[in-house]
Amino acid sequence: MRYELYYWPSIQGRGEFVRLALEEAGADYVDVARLPARHGMGMPALMRWLDGATIERPPFAPPYLKVGELVIGQTANILQYLGPRLGLAPRAEAGRIWTHQLQLTLADLINEIHDTHHPIASGLYYEDQKLEARRRTADFREQRLPKFLDYFEQVLQRNPRRGSYMVGARLSYVDLSVFQLIAGLRYAFPRLMTGLAPQYRGLFDLHDRVAIRPRIAAYLASKRRIAFNQQGIFRHYPELDQPL
Amino acid sequence: MRYELYYWPSIQGRGEFVRLALEEAGADYVDVARLPARHGMGMPALMRWLDGATIERPPFAPPYLKVGELVIGQTANILQYLGPRLGLAPRAEAGRIWTHQLQLTLADLINEIHDTHHPIASGLYYEDQKLEARRRTADFREQRLPKFLDYFEQVLQRNPRRGSYMVGARLSYVDLSVFQLIAGLRYAFPRLMTGLAPQYRGLFDLHDRVAIRPRIAAYLASKRRIAFNQQGIFRHYPELDQPL
Repeated sequence: MRYELYYWPSIQGRGEFVRLALEEAGADYVDVARLPARHGMGMPALMRWLDGATIERPPFAPPYLKVGELVIGQTANILQYLGPRLGLAPRAEAGRIWTHQLQLTLADLINEIHDTHHPIASGLYYEDQKLEARRRTADFREQRLPKFLDYFEQVLQRNPRRGSYMVGARLSYVDLSVFQLIAGLRYAFPRLMTGLAPQYRGLFDLHDRVAIRPRIAAYLASKRRIAFNQQGIFRHYPELDQPL
Repeated sequence: MRYELYYWPSIQGRGEFVRLALEEAGADYVDVARLPARHGMGMPALMRWLDGATIERPPFAPPYLKVGELVIGQTANILQYLGPRLGLAPRAEAGRIWTHQLQLTLADLINEIHDTHHPIASGLYYEDQKLEARRRTADFREQRLPKFLDYFEQVLQRNPRRGSYMVGARLSYVDLSVFQLIAGLRYAFPRLMTGLAPQYRGLFDLHDRVAIRPRIAAYLASKRRIAFNQQGIFRHYPELDQPL
């Protein structure tokens, strides 16, 4: 089964959480919008699902994943679908519900990270909401980020198969997402994250262990991995990055 | 099976999407934090799951649902669990994935509605972010809300079992959530929503049809339904409510 991933071609964004799962599993997939439009791919192929007047079940936004006739939207929903099929989710129902719950909580944090630089409107430039971004990021740095990281660190420490993974004794898609979260936060807020590292050793270690998994390391070194940049969720504005 | 719902006792909030599903199904449930602490319920019972130092799988925030030994967090995750059990989700996997996808998109909109009055920090008072709220709400009114409502109206119109429900030929938990969305938007933005009503006739009709379902009507007339108020997600600030 070939998976077709549809996501904006020039950013990691929310699509990256799906890419990491597909890469770790060595899945057969195409990153549609990054392929040439003359081959029926590219942005026209992506936009067809959003704008097509006859799509019965249109996604609201990328990423979406096409699997045969099925088109699945919403990042956490895609990962929930892929998890068992790629060997990246627990077998028991309770474990799957818990894994999905963690992914949804991570999605909430990702939304808040986006809003640090776009607190007023995603359709406006950062430059048009710089003052508000400064206020929102101060609260993010002092209140919201520690609350979320405390939570995820605690989840890791309380996993009875202690110390290695977020859920159970094996890697799941949530571990890959935690890797991406920590990598992105380090890109966006290097000074802040250097200061926080000692408090969240479990999460930082998990990041490091994911980064050296053979398939992830190969992916990160490849051209398939888009670099962090100033159009994505994680953006580095030095004026927003202060140590706690 | 008795369900235990844990949510803040004085607001509808995100818990209301779960309450509506339980009520429509006539499920056996207790709204734990609204019952007396002297009977082991109330806020202490709610806080135990958030703060308890030995909870292996703690939820990040309410609502969460206890079902036997299972504690499920994240609103859309709870509804995904309850859907098939309460007869409020399609039987086929593709239909369930689609229903969950719609609920997650609705959750994104709910987050944006919250941020209209709290664009800077959920921990600050509205009065401390009034100027920013005015800017964010203008964008919400002109860009974001129409984008989401266009989408949901389109989903309703494109359902091949046309005109009645969001998914398939029967009521699902997403229909109940659309009811709550429209009711909340009307409370928060009465002038705006009066102007929008002709464009979103399908969604408004769905709201009206849900409201008169016997169990929902009985619930809305009961003391179990907390009134909209100025501590919830939907808040009425006249200065934020302008017609388009």
